Amino acid sequence: VLGTIYDHGPISRAEIARRTELTRTTVSGVVADLLASGLTREVGRGPSTGGKAPILLELVADGRYLIGLDLGDKTFNGALVNLRGEAVHTVARDVDNRDGEAALTLVLEIVDQLLAEADRPVLGIGIGTAGLIDTNVGMVIEAVNLDWRDVPLGTLVHRRSGLPVYVANDSKAAALAAFVFGEARTDNLVVIKVGKGIGAGIVIGGRLFQGDGFGAGEIGHMTMESEGALCRCGRLGCLETLASSRAILARLAGSAIDPEAPLREVARAAASGDAQVLTVVRQAGAALGRAIGWLISVLDIERVVLIGQVTELGEPWLVAVQHAARASALPVLGRSAVIEIGEQGDAGVMLGASALLMTRELGINLAPLHPVSGRPGSLAAAEELAG
Amino acid sequence: VLGTIYDHGPISRAEIARRTELTRTTVSGVVADLLASGLTREVGRGPSTGGKAPILLELVADGRYLIGLDLGDKTFNGALVNLRGEAVHTVARDVDNRDGEAALTLVLEIVDQLLAEADRPVLGIGIGTAGLIDTNVGMVIEAVNLDWRDVPLGTLVHRRSGLPVYVANDSKAAALAAFVFGEARTDNLVVIKVGKGIGAGIVIGGRLFQGDGFGAGEIGHMTMESEGALCRCGRLGCLETLASSRAILARLAGSAIDPEAPLREVARAAASGDAQVLTVVRQAGAALGRAIGWLISVLDIERVVLIGQVTELGEPWLVAVQHAARASALPVLGRSAVIEIGEQGDAGVMLGASALLMTRELGINLAPLHPVSGRPGSLAAAEELAG
Repeated sequence: VLGTIYDHGPISRAEIARRTELTRTTVSGVVADLLASGLTREVGRGPSTGGKAPILLELVADGRYLIGLDLGDKTFNGALVNLRGEAVHTVARDVDNRDGEAALTLVLEIVDQLLAEADRPVLGIGIGTAGLIDTNVGMVIEAVNLDWRDVPLGTLVHRRSGLPVYVANDSKAAALAAFVFGEARTDNLVVIKVGKGIGAGIVIGGRLFQGDGFGAGEIGHMTMESEGALCRCGRLGCLETLASSRAILARLAGSAIDPEAPLREVARAAASGDAQVLTVVRQAGAALGRAIGWLISVLDIERVVLIGQVTELGEPWLVAVQHAARASALPVLGRSAVIEIGEQGDAGVMLGASALLMTRELGINLAPLHPVSGRPGSLAAAEELAG
Repeated sequence: VLGTIYDHGPISRAEIARRTELTRTTVSGVVADLLASGLTREVGRGPSTGGKAPILLELVADGRYLIGLDLGDKTFNGALVNLRGEAVHTVARDVDNRDGEAALTLVLEIVDQLLAEADRPVLGIGIGTAGLIDTNVGMVIEAVNLDWRDVPLGTLVHRRSGLPVYVANDSKAAALAAFVFGEARTDNLVVIKVGKGIGAGIVIGGRLFQGDGFGAGEIGHMTMESEGALCRCGRLGCLETLASSRAILARLAGSAIDPEAPLREVARAAASGDAQVLTVVRQAGAALGRAIGWLISVLDIERVVLIGQVTELGEPWLVAVQHAARASALPVLGRSAVIEIGEQGDAGVMLGASALLMTRELGINLAPLHPVSGRPGSLAAAEELAG
C-alpha cells in the first residue's frame, strides 16, 4: 500500500485497492495505520467518478529520515535524507589515508553526527563502500583499499545506532540508483566506479545482479598484464594498476603534477597541452576501455555509466575509453554501446544505499535484487543481525 | 496443465487443479483436449484419499516429435526426438568446410531427411548454431565460421517445412540444456563451447541471459592481444586466435600432427610425451582460462561447464584452463569456481534447442529466457514469421 502511495500519490483508497488487488476494507485499515504513523497524509479530494469525491492520500516525504553513507576514496560522505531521497543535512569528512580501525571509527563518528541532527524518526542506515560485501549480513568480506577483511560493518554500526543497517558495494548501490532514479530506465545497465579502486554494478532485467558470492563486477582485479605492476591485492597487472586514480598519479611522478593533487588538476594540465600528461590520461582510459570491451563481450549490455573521481579527467579520457572498448569487442556489439559519464556522480552511491534500505524497511519495491544463493551460515548470521 | 503433467505425472486431475490453482472444471476441460490430441493418457488409478481412487494422467512421450539440429564445426547433427528429449532417429552429415549457401542447403537436406522419417506429428524444429542469433525472429545476425550474415535461417527452414522453427546460439542452447536437464541445477551457470569458434551461454537466476542484442557470451572475439594474430572477424588477437581448435592445429603446423586431424590425436600425442604438442595444448588452455578469469570477475558465477571439440584435449588442457582462470580473478572469487568438462557434450545443443521449442509450442516452462528488449522491427518480423 505504501509503495503504491509512493509511486502514484496523491491517490484515493479505491484506486489503491484496485492497484494492489486488496479489498477496500484491508486498504482502509492499512491506511489508518500509515496516517497514525505519520508516513501518509490526506491532501484534499480528487475528481468524483459518480459518487462523493474521494479523499486523496500522499506520502509525507519528511515523515521519516534515512541515513546514507558513501565511503569514498578521499572523503566519507554522509547525509540525512527524506523518503524522496532529498538530503536534509550532510557531513563530509576527509579520509586522510585512514584505513583499518581508524576508518571504522570515522564511519561511527559520522553516524553519530547525523543522528544528532535528526529531528524525525530515522528508519535505518544505508552504507555504500568499495569492496566485496555480503549484503545479507552487512559483512565486508574484502575491501583492499580500506584494508578491511571480514569486517562486520553492518553489525558494528547497528550496535552503535540501534538501527537497521544495509551495507552494499558502492558501484552496485550506484547502479541501483541509476536504474531507480536515473532518466534512462533500461532493463540492463552497468555502472563502473573508477577511483582508487575500480568496481562495477550490474543491473540485469531490472534487478541488481550480485553473482554467486556477491562478487559480480569485481573487475578492478582482472589480470590485464600478467607481467604487469604489483597490485595492492598482491597479484600482478590488475586493471587497477593501469586505470585507477592511484595508477594515473603514480605514472605522473616526476612531472609537475603533485601526486596528492585532485584529478581535476591532471585534467587541466592535459587540456593546456601537456603532452606527457595527455598520454598518461589516454593510456589509463584505453586500459579501462579494454576491460569494458570484455565486459560488453560477456554481457552485451549497451548502457555503461562511469562514475568516480577519475571521471574528472573528462573528454580526452572518455574518448580513449570509448575507442578502446569498441575495439575490444565484436563490432556488432561495440557499435551500439553507449559509454558515458554519469549525471548523478557519487551521490548515486548514497541514494542507492538508501533505496536498498527503504526496500527492506518499508517494503517499497524500489530496488530489487537478484537472489544470492549465499555461502553457508549467512542466513543464520543475517537473523542474528536482524534480531 | 501439460507442464504440470510433464513435471509431476502420473498425476490426478485434482492434484493438477491444486498445483495450477485452476478450478477442477477447467482442468477437466483441458485434460479432455489433451487426451483427444494424444499428448496425455490415463494410466490407472492412484491411492484413494477417502473417496474413489483418482485416475492418473501421464505425458505420452511419443505423442509428438521434435526436430533438433546442431550445426557443429565439422558435422551438422540432427535428431527426431520425443517429448522427453529421447532421440528416435538421427542424421549426421559432414560439413567438409561448406559455408554460405552450401551450408544452408545442407541444413535443409537434413530437415527433409528427418521429416521423411517422422511417423508422428512433428511440433517444430529447434536449431542450435554458432554465431549471434536474434532468437525473436530466428535471424543469424553473424556467424563468422559459416560465413553467414543476416541470414533469416528460421524463415527459410519454416518455408521449407511449414513448421515453427526456433533458432538459438549453440552455447546458449547448451547452457539451457545443462540447466534444465543437467544434474546440478544451480541458478547461475555458464557453458562455454570451444571448437572452431568460442562462445558462452549464460544462465542467470534460472533464465538464459542474452543481453540487449542477443550477444551476451560472445567471448570468442574479446581482444586478448592487441598485436596478436589476424582473426577471421578481421581484427587482431581475439580469443579464437589463441584457444580455438583452428588456432591449436595451426600452431602444430610442421609437427607430426595432420592439420585436419581430430583433436583426439593431439591429445594422444600430448599424452605420449610430445613436449611441443603439450606446450601448445597448455598455452591454448591458459588463454581460455584467462578469459574465464575475466568472466568470473564480471559475473562471479561459480559453475563453468566446457563443451565442444577442444574438450577432447582432456586433463592437461583442463588443468591449464583452471589454473589460468584462478590466477586471473580475485582469489576470493577464483577459489570457489568449479570449471569442468560437460557430461552432455554436444548433445546438449540439440536438447537445449528442443527445450526452447517445447517452451514456445507447448507452453511447458522448461526453458525460460530473460526478455531481450530487441531492436526495432524485430517483433513485427517475429509476427510475420509466426503468421
